[in-house]
Amino acid sequence: MSAQNYQLLIKHMLANCAAQASRKHVVYKGERRFTYPQFISRVHRLGAALAARGAVFGTKIAVMDWDSHRYLESYFAIPMLGAAIMMVNIRLSPEQIAYTIDHADAEMILVNRDFAPLFDAIKPKLTKLKTVIYLSDEPAHDEYEAMLDAAEQTQKFPDFDENTIATTFYTTGTTGLPKGVYFSHRQIVLHTLTLMSTIMMAGVNGRISREDVYMPLTPLFHVHGWGFPYAATMIGMQQIYTGRFIPATVLKLLAAENVTMTHSVPTILHMLLTAPEGAAIDLSKLKMIIGGSALPGSLCRAAMARGIDIYTGYGMSESGPILSISQLTQDLLNDCATKDDEILLRTAAGQPGVLIELAIMDDDLNILPRGGSATGEIVARGPCLTEGYTKDADASATLWRGGWLHTGDIGHFDANGMLHILDRSKDVIKTGGEWISSLTLEDVIMSHPAVSECAVISVSDPRWGERPLAIVVLKPEQKATEDEIKSVIRAKTETGDLSRYAIPDHIIFAPSLEKTSVGKLDKKKLRTLYTTTQAA
Amino acid sequence: MSAQNYQLLIKHMLANCAAQASRKHVVYKGERRFTYPQFISRVHRLGAALAARGAVFGTKIAVMDWDSHRYLESYFAIPMLGAAIMMVNIRLSPEQIAYTIDHADAEMILVNRDFAPLFDAIKPKLTKLKTVIYLSDEPAHDEYEAMLDAAEQTQKFPDFDENTIATTFYTTGTTGLPKGVYFSHRQIVLHTLTLMSTIMMAGVNGRISREDVYMPLTPLFHVHGWGFPYAATMIGMQQIYTGRFIPATVLKLLAAENVTMTHSVPTILHMLLTAPEGAAIDLSKLKMIIGGSALPGSLCRAAMARGIDIYTGYGMSESGPILSISQLTQDLLNDCATKDDEILLRTAAGQPGVLIELAIMDDDLNILPRGGSATGEIVARGPCLTEGYTKDADASATLWRGGWLHTGDIGHFDANGMLHILDRSKDVIKTGGEWISSLTLEDVIMSHPAVSECAVISVSDPRWGERPLAIVVLKPEQKATEDEIKSVIRAKTETGDLSRYAIPDHIIFAPSLEKTSVGKLDKKKLRTLYTTTQAA
Repeated sequence: MSAQNYQLLIKHMLANCAAQASRKHVVYKGERRFTYPQFISRVHRLGAALAARGAVFGTKIAVMDWDSHRYLESYFAIPMLGAAIMMVNIRLSPEQIAYTIDHADAEMILVNRDFAPLFDAIKPKLTKLKTVIYLSDEPAHDEYEAMLDAAEQTQKFPDFDENTIATTFYTTGTTGLPKGVYFSHRQIVLHTLTLMSTIMMAGVNGRISREDVYMPLTPLFHVHGWGFPYAATMIGMQQIYTGRFIPATVLKLLAAENVTMTHSVPTILHMLLTAPEGAAIDLSKLKMIIGGSALPGSLCRAAMARGIDIYTGYGMSESGPILSISQLTQDLLNDCATKDDEILLRTAAGQPGVLIELAIMDDDLNILPRGGSATGEIVARGPCLTEGYTKDADASATLWRGGWLHTGDIGHFDANGMLHILDRSKDVIKTGGEWISSLTLEDVIMSHPAVSECAVISVSDPRWGERPLAIVVLKPEQKATEDEIKSVIRAKTETGDLSRYAIPDHIIFAPSLEKTSVGKLDKKKLRTLYTTTQAA
Repeated sequence: MSAQNYQLLIKHMLANCAAQASRKHVVYKGERRFTYPQFISRVHRLGAALAARGAVFGTKIAVMDWDSHRYLESYFAIPMLGAAIMMVNIRLSPEQIAYTIDHADAEMILVNRDFAPLFDAIKPKLTKLKTVIYLSDEPAHDEYEAMLDAAEQTQKFPDFDENTIATTFYTTGTTGLPKGVYFSHRQIVLHTLTLMSTIMMAGVNGRISREDVYMPLTPLFHVHGWGFPYAATMIGMQQIYTGRFIPATVLKLLAAENVTMTHSVPTILHMLLTAPEGAAIDLSKLKMIIGGSALPGSLCRAAMARGIDIYTGYGMSESGPILSISQLTQDLLNDCATKDDEILLRTAAGQPGVLIELAIMDDDLNILPRGGSATGEIVARGPCLTEGYTKDADASATLWRGGWLHTGDIGHFDANGMLHILDRSKDVIKTGGEWISSLTLEDVIMSHPAVSECAVISVSDPRWGERPLAIVVLKPEQKATEDEIKSVIRAKTETGDLSRYAIPDHIIFAPSLEKTSVGKLDKKKLRTLYTTTQAA
């Protein structure tokens, strides 16, 4: 490989951070702190130790840990060997975890001893596994630190083709077994560069810089921690990793480490805002990107009231993930006559990132012209999208039909190129010839002061095609009747904000709602559960 | 080309700016303003018009214009056709201009009528040229606007391999004929992304965002306007182009258009600060990157006194150009006890940009370990470096000897990974066993209040190997003797800032100094001129 034929490799992202960020740290639970020169040395020693244990070009190495410095080190050292890191979704069922590790052909695993009971139970099913390395915060039970202590830091990471697979993980769709997606070195580097360019070009809200203190509140196994750990490391940001997610610990770290930048799903934000331990914490320096599911306007408002600079990112496992970000420009802010207008923009899916092409496609695979009211499935092209699903040519072809990656989301663009998601294509309710967004309806119902959580699903209807059904969880000690909930919705139909077909025929009160492994409403389960109830 | 096989093409940089920056403009001389949707339409029409005139994949199309919206449109439309834009250095001699256009195999040229006398004279030498399109600000003489008016905006730009050559231009080295360098679509896109990431990650000084108003003060023919026009367009910044460089016009535009970001060589900055028309202009909102040659400390201080957020970029024609930027981190600023310390950092070559690997190489092509006092030639690796010189295999091999691009500059890194350039390897003065930087010596001499400009060159000496010779231009109506100049230098040798060998044996007073086509001191000419004088 000649110097002229430069390959986009993950190792190049580490070219300058040791020298330029020599006084910044990678911090684990506030208990361990590594300077960047130490971090770089550890990455080299991890690479040497894994190579000594048999990792070669192409080896699949699974990681099963809480968010930690070890995980971040694995993000770099494993791919830099030419091996691929498989990030295990620890919130899947044991059967699914076993399936994904085995399906990914993992021959080596780094597994936190906290998962030992689960891991022991599934180990017989891991047919390709040869090497297990146990991680623990307890030095006596930690093979990881011992392995690094014994390793040489003179490890040289090889050059190879930038299209070498660097990462893989599994996504739980709405049907069937988990599906593996995979990303090359080139894609990871380009995702880092486009994410950085997109997020750092902001001039008004959400500006992020190398001076920020970063702490992810989405797990590192979830779509590369949304790509931010790679970016934060490349530019040498102070980084905080929380270990096992415990609200009180997280809130303490947030304050003690002066965290200024994070990202999470709406449920985590909700927890932060409502946890008693968080009431006294100053959140006014915090920039926070919400993704994973739609950010309800009420939650956005509550975050802004605490001083959080909050906005939305949109993407999916298949897209690496970031496709768009709802940072606001001065022009857009000037357009906002009220706080409600601003909230509508901050909770939108956002403007596509640099180099990322998003379009609306109809059912016949035609790209619809921009502008006007064109609504349909969002499809994407860009430099960081998975080429397909592991060992699943049919699903890959479906994902990429018509030469675009299909998101499965229904949306439209406004005049400023801002993407607004109506709903998942599977969740949108087609009733009386109109499309009702389950998300919008949930947001309206959530505005009732007694409502804690809500899910809206469609049930088939002989007359209208489909009808919305709302399942509502009330706040502790609060009461509301079906009619009271409906009247909140009716008010919105009278102002024209909602179609009159949006008023559900029934409201069901439930003690809790089914969630997926990453904390989203599990509408597949909810449909199974409640459409049966409904039909009965 | 399937969607999965995503190619890094210049056209993808335009994916989102029309919608996202619909209210920003590309402005020409304050007289013509195009919204981004209009700009995008013009790029499409320019592509269609050039294709109609015979431009096909691989055609070399020269551009010879002042900085203009037309030039920016050509930056995109020409490469997006699969053709290559050749940017003509209008400051070369007519013979050199003819040589470069012909050597580049240009078949088509866009030429401003202001250059018609020169162009008519050289036209017979342009053996491959088939098509001439004249540009003018006068509608009656402007074929460009007429061509765009008649063209279809439905032009589709094709997909092709990202390694297709997109741009080429010529660099005048210290010896021989001008040499062509060239960059592919992939390199231009990666330069844009790494430049954006590098410059926008700043948290303390030099922060640039999509809200900035950009006006280049280095010509667009010079190394892609340092890459900023591509970046500014991708993110939809307000952009101002000055036309022919006339100090009073430029200063008027700077104020009238609320320019907040620019870049230039030191001589232009010097002009801005001393021009009578600029005295009343508020420069306190301006961020300014200085490159091309070293920024003297005195000039940096003068700029800071006017409120300019000034810092340095380092690079060269062969590197696309940006290799490093001297934006300061909070840690670095905290280290500065005095304004002088801060000036030393702001005038340093800076920290390498993301993905860019810089190293120090000795004469035997060994990379020297970082840290300590390792001083030697700066060599580079990165994703945007020219693969070589057009039709010159020998010079290409020399440029890339040992697998690194050789900058020809002597420098060292400090403990914070900040690069400090001692001198051009050809300009450094080796005397009495020590290396004296001509740049440092010039800076010291410039601190004398009567000195306007200064150049230090080496002359051979039988006893010491080489000796410094200073050529000094005094300010109008000011006087200074040889001894007075030497005493300023002597003072620095007494504090240990300079070696005692740095005091020149002779100071020559001259009415002006020889400059290159891009405004740098032409030390080659100066050496020829003054070493002869000296020897006589």
